Amino acid sequence: MTSRERFLAACACRPLDRPPVWIMRQAGRYLPEYRDLKARHSFAELVRQPELAAEVTLQPLRRFALDAAILFSDILVLPEALGQGYHFREEGGIAMEFRLETRAQLDRLPLENVRDQLRYVATALRLLRRRLGDQTALLGFGGSPWTLACYMLEGGGSEDFPRARELFRADRVFFNALLEKLSVALIDYFKLQIESGVDAIQVFDTWGGLIAGPDYEAASLQWIRRIVAALPAGFPVILYGKGTAGHLAAQAASGVRVLSVDSTVDLAAAHDSLAGDAALAAQQIRVALQGNLDPALLGATPLAVRDETWRLLETMRDRPGHIFNLGHGIRPDASLECVAAMVSTVVNWKN
Amino acid sequence: MTSRERFLAACACRPLDRPPVWIMRQAGRYLPEYRDLKARHSFAELVRQPELAAEVTLQPLRRFALDAAILFSDILVLPEALGQGYHFREEGGIAMEFRLETRAQLDRLPLENVRDQLRYVATALRLLRRRLGDQTALLGFGGSPWTLACYMLEGGGSEDFPRARELFRADRVFFNALLEKLSVALIDYFKLQIESGVDAIQVFDTWGGLIAGPDYEAASLQWIRRIVAALPAGFPVILYGKGTAGHLAAQAASGVRVLSVDSTVDLAAAHDSLAGDAALAAQQIRVALQGNLDPALLGATPLAVRDETWRLLETMRDRPGHIFNLGHGIRPDASLECVAAMVSTVVNWKN
Repeated sequence: MTSRERFLAACACRPLDRPPVWIMRQAGRYLPEYRDLKARHSFAELVRQPELAAEVTLQPLRRFALDAAILFSDILVLPEALGQGYHFREEGGIAMEFRLETRAQLDRLPLENVRDQLRYVATALRLLRRRLGDQTALLGFGGSPWTLACYMLEGGGSEDFPRARELFRADRVFFNALLEKLSVALIDYFKLQIESGVDAIQVFDTWGGLIAGPDYEAASLQWIRRIVAALPAGFPVILYGKGTAGHLAAQAASGVRVLSVDSTVDLAAAHDSLAGDAALAAQQIRVALQGNLDPALLGATPLAVRDETWRLLETMRDRPGHIFNLGHGIRPDASLECVAAMVSTVVNWKN
Repeated sequence: MTSRERFLAACACRPLDRPPVWIMRQAGRYLPEYRDLKARHSFAELVRQPELAAEVTLQPLRRFALDAAILFSDILVLPEALGQGYHFREEGGIAMEFRLETRAQLDRLPLENVRDQLRYVATALRLLRRRLGDQTALLGFGGSPWTLACYMLEGGGSEDFPRARELFRADRVFFNALLEKLSVALIDYFKLQIESGVDAIQVFDTWGGLIAGPDYEAASLQWIRRIVAALPAGFPVILYGKGTAGHLAAQAASGVRVLSVDSTVDLAAAHDSLAGDAALAAQQIRVALQGNLDPALLGATPLAVRDETWRLLETMRDRPGHIFNLGHGIRPDASLECVAAMVSTVVNWKN
């Protein structure tokens, strides 16, 4: 069984001898070979030059027995393609070129050029598909409309992005126009990724947990549902949510195939509660779970990582539909020994 | 009915014509009169000089019809009393005097002086009790052992405090010794607050949501349970958790009387699920809920605030045991008009 087959089987909740494994942000700063490249190229070059993006994407696969490659890119390339650029501040953190404050500014962002602007992503994905062949799963990704709106309205990174929630309350018409525009752009972008050979797409609703519970549907989930409905039927979409543990059943009913959960979620309890959900059963909905080792553990000891990885694997024994991953992106200070311990524990475990 | 009676009745889940209302971090930077005082005194002076702390505590009550005063202080005065001081960095954020890294450092922190070191808190609370009389509830507070450990181990503020979770995995003996010491100190500190006249104590488990779900009991909740068990039987403890929505039933069984929930929680759904919990019912446990307007809304418009406040109030109609509050501390950029709109909407609502 190839890694790609394993990955797709897990998305389909088929029983497996062991789950596939990949790592959110697996191509990046914790790798010395990435830091070497980064010393010679800017982040923007690494993202926008297909050969470089493909090289960075493949780096972690040379080191670790990962079952999937995920394109090295950034969720903010989509706002950038719409005309709202961004950069990383010297002192850390993200700054957008401007803060989206008026409806007129929104109306000026052109939807027509998304595919053209993001052609470099398609080129990188095609390169990767050729290099990976049928052996390894290739993943695309993007931010959820809500999560992208958070950055666009705030004008950059933030501890808790208050402006998006303010706008949601104070001017729903403007809010909906923005989310609608982002959804249309994301549908275009995800179709481009699918045409370029990805096996699955992960949607990062990283800031979904900032929304007041009763507003999650209106502010975030409805837009994700629309996007999934516009993609080819059955195409595997993975929905990552941070702090959205209260919404698992609603997320499962949104059309996605996999829920990627943060480390606060008890995987077995989540699996059992979704499997026992009458409304989901009536619609014959089954979703796989992805996760959820705490990324902080990769700064502890290989022994601690091995123990906890094993515990997570055991918790999902006889619960088909598990993709092993972290509960959030890997940290730049993760130790290579800890990452190796995690991956080898998964690869050597037997269901 | 006085505000104090209203507050205590809500803690006891008794039906009321309207919930009591207070605001997490209600004494602070969003108030011009606080900023005036702050221009003449350092934060440390405002906290440590009882007359100043009492004055700052009372400022929001002169402006808004709040039912409770909460002592102006900081959760980090406890590590400070143990010998690990802190300050606010010029560029923002908290820095501890050092990072707690070894068991020897921990053993050097003296437990004996907690009461002496924190006598200024007792003096401020006695002043406040005299000034408030029986009219207004007076609240004390402290950090949970886990949340304090996060700062002590990290050496300051952090996006997600990885060191505490690393230590929990890598050296449970050291971790437990730290949490044990903090629990003993907190019991002392809370008893001092109770002797000084507080009507309730809020425990801030602000970083409880960073813990992997299955670890929440061992890393945080068990220590809170021990503290509550050491306080006078029935004394109202309010447990605030951010990102701990998955643990409401366990929190309710910990001995606290009120759960203060973040804005991601659907209040009515939480109430109903706790009321329908067979294990809690068997132990005759009923807890009140506190919350949970999104603090970001206080930067929107008074109209939006009024609508959402009303919606939250209606959602808890005929569900006794509600204390109106935010889902997290008020932001320094909150507008006074929005705060006024929130408080007056609560005060004028009728169950």
